[in-house]
Amino acid sequence: MSLLINPLSTLISLKHVHSGRQRQSRSGHPISSILTKQDRNPISPPFDFKRYTLEKADSVNRALAAAVEMKEPIKIHESMRYSLLAGGKRVRPMLCIAACELVGGDEPTALPAACAVEMIHTMSLMHDDLPCMDNDALRRGKPTNHRVFGEETAVLAGDALLSFAFEHVALRTPGASPESVVRVLGELARAIGAEGLVAGQVVDICSEGMTEVGLDHLEFIHHHKTAALLEGSVVLGAILGGGDEEEVGKLRKFAKCIGLLFQVVDDILDVTKSSAELGKTAGKDLVADKTTYPKLIGIEKSRELAEELNREAQEQLSQFHPHKAAPLIALANYIAYRDN
Amino acid sequence: MSLLINPLSTLISLKHVHSGRQRQSRSGHPISSILTKQDRNPISPPFDFKRYTLEKADSVNRALAAAVEMKEPIKIHESMRYSLLAGGKRVRPMLCIAACELVGGDEPTALPAACAVEMIHTMSLMHDDLPCMDNDALRRGKPTNHRVFGEETAVLAGDALLSFAFEHVALRTPGASPESVVRVLGELARAIGAEGLVAGQVVDICSEGMTEVGLDHLEFIHHHKTAALLEGSVVLGAILGGGDEEEVGKLRKFAKCIGLLFQVVDDILDVTKSSAELGKTAGKDLVADKTTYPKLIGIEKSRELAEELNREAQEQLSQFHPHKAAPLIALANYIAYRDN
Repeated sequence: MSLLINPLSTLISLKHVHSGRQRQSRSGHPISSILTKQDRNPISPPFDFKRYTLEKADSVNRALAAAVEMKEPIKIHESMRYSLLAGGKRVRPMLCIAACELVGGDEPTALPAACAVEMIHTMSLMHDDLPCMDNDALRRGKPTNHRVFGEETAVLAGDALLSFAFEHVALRTPGASPESVVRVLGELARAIGAEGLVAGQVVDICSEGMTEVGLDHLEFIHHHKTAALLEGSVVLGAILGGGDEEEVGKLRKFAKCIGLLFQVVDDILDVTKSSAELGKTAGKDLVADKTTYPKLIGIEKSRELAEELNREAQEQLSQFHPHKAAPLIALANYIAYRDN
Repeated sequence: MSLLINPLSTLISLKHVHSGRQRQSRSGHPISSILTKQDRNPISPPFDFKRYTLEKADSVNRALAAAVEMKEPIKIHESMRYSLLAGGKRVRPMLCIAACELVGGDEPTALPAACAVEMIHTMSLMHDDLPCMDNDALRRGKPTNHRVFGEETAVLAGDALLSFAFEHVALRTPGASPESVVRVLGELARAIGAEGLVAGQVVDICSEGMTEVGLDHLEFIHHHKTAALLEGSVVLGAILGGGDEEEVGKLRKFAKCIGLLFQVVDDILDVTKSSAELGKTAGKDLVADKTTYPKLIGIEKSRELAEELNREAQEQLSQFHPHKAAPLIALANYIAYRDN
């Protein structure tokens, strides 16, 4: 059974799934012990998720700041840097690096692609916040790009970040074969375009105010608007790290699950948290009369769906060494249990 | 002496250049004879420019329509196709194919990149026409994209065309090495971003209403806003066709000249033609109080500059066989002497 094919049938079966956080990992230990306790295997050191995320976010932030320098024309680079370096959680770059390292690659090989997915994510937020789209005032705890630099610059800086993402991967990826780089650029483009992120945004906009939106429709939006780029992040890392087809396939399925998980949790947070806690305008889905998981199936069933997606995601990692898979397991748990 | 470094010094020297169309080609014949008369070399058949452009435009139009199919989500694909298939002159794709064929490549190898540069050109027009930018009502003789599909869709369809351009080259370029494809994708991205097309657009917007705009400043705008993508079109074709570094270098310089030439002619047409003749709003540079070549140096000197740029462009082709170079020579003449 795949959640990705029929979430409705999954929801029906959720009564068989216990909903607490103490799920069992494939080694029989509760998954939370991976994050908080000494690993029971004496060969593997304990995995320190907080340290991991701080180190990776630092690498990514330094790489992003170096990639998009302040130079002429000042206004466009200032606008690009304003949104790019506004302190996002860097989940997508971390997924890219973790997937690369999981299949045997190293951080420097993944870093340009990791930066690229963050550039794409940032540009999608910049365009999404425009007055003609969500008309949002607050993003990552700061005024949105167009409120600071003007609409025309926000449009152009988004365009520049989008093209620069491709330039950065094409010209700055060390140690990967040209074949891998071409494949990665194709995957990245597909994650963005009219069959990826943009498709999700368009259908999302067209759905506002619609009274009859089913789960299939909602899942289409989320698969495209959110999951496509998260999937791309993981798959790019897996390809650049030299993963074989089976490994790339498993990681793609892992990514599809956490992609949908990410959006289910986002929907829950939108109705349960304040703007200050989120660093962006809370409750805006309700104001825009958007269809969300809580609206369609209620908060509790949304939480159960999130649990199930996290479990299915982590099943995909069972063929990898537990020590090596720890970062992706922890990232999936972070996406499931984050509070902003 | 290069026009690209100091157009002012070039203008001073223009008194030594005769300004009629009967310039000498490197074989000693007037260049216009390449377009209108039987070639005097019995080995080379005459070059039929009209037939060439019709054939190439037909190839490009069919390839574009096949590349961006009508499918779900309908609205975004409809919007993309509306602007992409609105009957542009296809100058950039033709330059890409002609450069590829000049160095020994074939049309199928260049066609995905040729489509990509037209997708990029189209998306730049869609975003440029937005209410927050030029707020234009007419493009290629039809209502602008946002007037038909709404602003939010015009923004997103532009984003989708931009990313699809990269996808199309990465996944659909036959017979070229992965090394060439990676190089081509890097060149394409650089032509668009904050050091290419977008840089030109930003500086252009910031210059509106400025009273002290010099030739250097104007040339910066045009080199980036117009010439960068024309240069990219030619260079992409030259790389994919297997051109060596010297050939790519010569063709890059050719492209820089015709890129600036294109904009000088555009500026002249904006003040001398009607909206109906241009298929877009005429006189808008004057209304927006934009700095243009006619405003800065007058119509006559602008025409002389166009002549000189065309001559310098064609000098770069002297190492190639006249028969093979005929399409690029004719395209340069077309850019210089077009009336819309």
